[in-house]
Amino acid sequence: MSLKRYLPILDWGARYDRDTATSDAVAAVIVTIMLIPQSLAYAMLAGLPPEVGLYASIAPLILYAVFGTSRALAVGPVAVVSLMTAAAVGQVAAQGTPEYWGAAIALALMSGLMLTAMGLLRLGFMANFLSHPVISGFITASGIIIAASQLKHILGVKAGGHNLAEVLASLAQTIGDANPITAVIGVSVAAFLFWARKRLKPLLIAKGLRPRLADVIAKAGPVMAVAASTLAVWGLGLHERGVAIVGAIPSGLPPLALPSLDPALWSSLAVSALLISVVGFVESVSVAQTLAAKRRQRIAPDQELIGLGAANIGAAFTGGFPVTGGFARSVVNFDAGAETPAAGAFTAVGILLAALLLTPLLHFLPVATLAATIIVAVLSLVDLGALRRTWVYSRPDFAAQLATIALTLGFGVEAGILAGVGLSIFLHLYTSSRPHVAVLGLVPGSEHFRNIRRHNVVTAPHVLMMRIDESLYFANARFLEDHVADAVAADPALRHVVLMCSAVNEIDASALESLEAIDQRLTAAGLRLHLSEVKGPVMDRLKRTDFLDHLSGDVFLTQYDAFHALAPEVADAARRAERRDTARAQAAQ
Amino acid sequence: MSLKRYLPILDWGARYDRDTATSDAVAAVIVTIMLIPQSLAYAMLAGLPPEVGLYASIAPLILYAVFGTSRALAVGPVAVVSLMTAAAVGQVAAQGTPEYWGAAIALALMSGLMLTAMGLLRLGFMANFLSHPVISGFITASGIIIAASQLKHILGVKAGGHNLAEVLASLAQTIGDANPITAVIGVSVAAFLFWARKRLKPLLIAKGLRPRLADVIAKAGPVMAVAASTLAVWGLGLHERGVAIVGAIPSGLPPLALPSLDPALWSSLAVSALLISVVGFVESVSVAQTLAAKRRQRIAPDQELIGLGAANIGAAFTGGFPVTGGFARSVVNFDAGAETPAAGAFTAVGILLAALLLTPLLHFLPVATLAATIIVAVLSLVDLGALRRTWVYSRPDFAAQLATIALTLGFGVEAGILAGVGLSIFLHLYTSSRPHVAVLGLVPGSEHFRNIRRHNVVTAPHVLMMRIDESLYFANARFLEDHVADAVAADPALRHVVLMCSAVNEIDASALESLEAIDQRLTAAGLRLHLSEVKGPVMDRLKRTDFLDHLSGDVFLTQYDAFHALAPEVADAARRAERRDTARAQAAQ
Repeated sequence: MSLKRYLPILDWGARYDRDTATSDAVAAVIVTIMLIPQSLAYAMLAGLPPEVGLYASIAPLILYAVFGTSRALAVGPVAVVSLMTAAAVGQVAAQGTPEYWGAAIALALMSGLMLTAMGLLRLGFMANFLSHPVISGFITASGIIIAASQLKHILGVKAGGHNLAEVLASLAQTIGDANPITAVIGVSVAAFLFWARKRLKPLLIAKGLRPRLADVIAKAGPVMAVAASTLAVWGLGLHERGVAIVGAIPSGLPPLALPSLDPALWSSLAVSALLISVVGFVESVSVAQTLAAKRRQRIAPDQELIGLGAANIGAAFTGGFPVTGGFARSVVNFDAGAETPAAGAFTAVGILLAALLLTPLLHFLPVATLAATIIVAVLSLVDLGALRRTWVYSRPDFAAQLATIALTLGFGVEAGILAGVGLSIFLHLYTSSRPHVAVLGLVPGSEHFRNIRRHNVVTAPHVLMMRIDESLYFANARFLEDHVADAVAADPALRHVVLMCSAVNEIDASALESLEAIDQRLTAAGLRLHLSEVKGPVMDRLKRTDFLDHLSGDVFLTQYDAFHALAPEVADAARRAERRDTARAQAAQ
Repeated sequence: MSLKRYLPILDWGARYDRDTATSDAVAAVIVTIMLIPQSLAYAMLAGLPPEVGLYASIAPLILYAVFGTSRALAVGPVAVVSLMTAAAVGQVAAQGTPEYWGAAIALALMSGLMLTAMGLLRLGFMANFLSHPVISGFITASGIIIAASQLKHILGVKAGGHNLAEVLASLAQTIGDANPITAVIGVSVAAFLFWARKRLKPLLIAKGLRPRLADVIAKAGPVMAVAASTLAVWGLGLHERGVAIVGAIPSGLPPLALPSLDPALWSSLAVSALLISVVGFVESVSVAQTLAAKRRQRIAPDQELIGLGAANIGAAFTGGFPVTGGFARSVVNFDAGAETPAAGAFTAVGILLAALLLTPLLHFLPVATLAATIIVAVLSLVDLGALRRTWVYSRPDFAAQLATIALTLGFGVEAGILAGVGLSIFLHLYTSSRPHVAVLGLVPGSEHFRNIRRHNVVTAPHVLMMRIDESLYFANARFLEDHVADAVAADPALRHVVLMCSAVNEIDASALESLEAIDQRLTAAGLRLHLSEVKGPVMDRLKRTDFLDHLSGDVFLTQYDAFHALAPEVADAARRAERRDTARAQAAQ
């Protein structure tokens, strides 16, 4: 049982048969076709040689198949994590050096170990601290940065820059040096890919192809672009006219090597590795959860951490870089009929064959084609409409989202995501530090209590009844003290304060001390504090303290009990008045 | 109106009369007697010359009288803030140098400006992020550190150390060099002060003194100790036998000077200044609030920030160091009958006279006496019993409190308080990220729904009803997704899921997206998602989105409506069964 939990392959592997294998193999072929250009392109985005992208798409997929719980997740290099890798590794080594590659490998190992540790310690909840608006803002901003960073390859210029403003300024300065042929290739490929994504499938179906086949062909758009532009460069000798090409890619098995264990390198990459782990996990788990639900299956988030951790450790020992589950790729895998993680292992075999046999064919592949592939892929991640939707629904969430986007664009991925997380936590605490408090009155003829501002209700001049619509904890404990003190100071006739706790799910130690302070202050001023409708678990904990022994007033089961006990004449009058009204109404009928 | 808000003196000053002045003056005399030895001692604790303590007890009191809202708060140097000052300033300059004093002055200015800015921007809620257990743990640990740090003066040895372990180790190494006469003075003074605090007042009352006078005499214990030990040193020439004395204290007005505006100094003190501001404010405002409530008065927390800010700015321009409202001193002020902040201004006059006239008399004051004064004062702050009380009530609060104490003792005041704040926020998020979720059934014969695990209730096999006892926000959004997915995957008979939202005070953008994801996944699996008992403000916000248009199920006003609509036969059967039971019970009677 426990072994199956940590090795999900024992579960599905025991029931594996030929039919399942066929489904998985078909899905694997389609994902392999999609993954070859993507893995080359994302390696380039991460600042690494193209073959590293292939290496990162072999061992990780096999390890995820052993340890992962999603039946459809397709693991490998993805755009956002590749950008984060480039940002992190760029701080410790120069692109193109062996140290740069070594640092990327170390980053994969650290991320893998962190993910595995989080899984074993069941720390998956840490991913919750990335709120949806922050993630969405972060991915949008990353998409914009990635697209902007690839424009230099499309134009064939040597531009640089560490944030959006620098990248755009550098592009503007160097645009005069643009290589026209490169630009034609880049723009044509991008235009073709946009067209293929939107129009090719309907067109093929209209031409009479089966939808399934039309879909596969449309998904193979990047492969067609790679083949056509490579042939064009090779046939027309465009590389001799300034078109940058991928060049010689060593063919062969991924290199087995021990990653660097240099403590200085590890400590300078630690924060980056943590952010990459959490962002990668959040992206991956939401895709996996969505696809699993479609077939009413389950994934185990903590085991997913172990699966992704194993994948990254595998990447590190085979010369790869950080990987995670990709959104588009997993959807393709699912749609193509993948039934078990074995589909991922089959894909790994496909990529391995590509690494052994296809790399000579990629020599004349123009860099601009890969850049166009990246741009088309990441622009689908950009969702500026989310800003408007968040604004409409929640101002604090909007603030966190806007800050994440602005800081990611202006100061880079790590500053952006840290600011987003910090701000969403701060704003959550701020919002719940000023909870809604309603002053209550009795709805005549009922036992219900409502806000005196919104309803026509009955109150007693010497009884103040308040309902706090929030758990009581340190962030709002003082607010409660202030609120009660203000209300009591404003009305010298008061003798009783009743706090209705129906919406109070928790009272922490700070709030307990505040309640004690409120009670002591009220007692000193000649008032009594009562509670009503305290929830069972909250009451259980209060009973473990001496608060209830010292409380000047009582704890009432219902708000009506409290009102009737403290202001019986008003409560009874309200009931009589109601009876009279009812009688009159009946008489009038 | 607005001017009165920012200048509370205009309010109470307009009604000021001779009777009030008399009360204030009497209180001021008593507080002055208490404050003279305290201000010398806390200056020493902060690593500053003793006269600086007097300087910090003049201008700040006058400025607080103008801008503060508490009628009884006595502002001046306090133990914990003095310790924090020593820790902060010790990092940028060596004790005894003009730079050290200059840095303490700059710290007061920065803290004053931060407090004023927080007041003007109404950021007083930031103090809420210090939970009560963290504050209590911090003050306990500070008290222990302060007491330990003063032992060297009691023993007359030159010990050092930056944390408790170092201080104790250094004391153990140097104890052989202890000066016996100094030790006799220190221990006798400490013993006398402990005795005076507990026993002197009852003794005097038993001897026939009026309780008020007995109280004043008991409070003057430190002054008696100062006078007696000074006389002893002077008369017996003990300073020539190795007893450290305060020495020459320049007499005169506080020096008016512009604090240092060095940006490097400011940036290295910024975090310390913020922590000192927040800790000082929290201590001060809780004393002020407690005392105000006793007379059913109000303080304005945001204006208190301005009052304390003005006091610290005043301290900075008159050669002082950070100040705040002191607990013991304010209680004395209140008990002695202070009616307005003018009592503080009168106290300032008293201290000014002391600075002008009394300093020559303090030449032979033994340092051991001041150390004993500090130890007796701070040991009353140590409350290790709080750890046990917090443990009984709340494990997360206990963890935050223990971490604060341990880190403060082990790594210093700033590490301790930052760890405490960070941990309490983390634990709050963690706790609310795993809310209590109850699966519900109908209590037969009622319209109430209760936890199926605790009550004998009726359910329908195709309807899952869940109540979430927490607001839904980013930290628990994914938990909810997991929880619903688990429940649905476990029971293939389910067709409807109803989330009862009676305890949901908020749904943030992350939780909204999670609800959308849950709805889409349920729909894909052939189920429908319903909500019930959604609160008004939550519903208002949901209506601003298209969530309700896409929701596969309905929103029901009550849980019973939902159950009756989705499982009418079960609901009706429960009602019929109940009627039958009632009829049988009546027949049996």
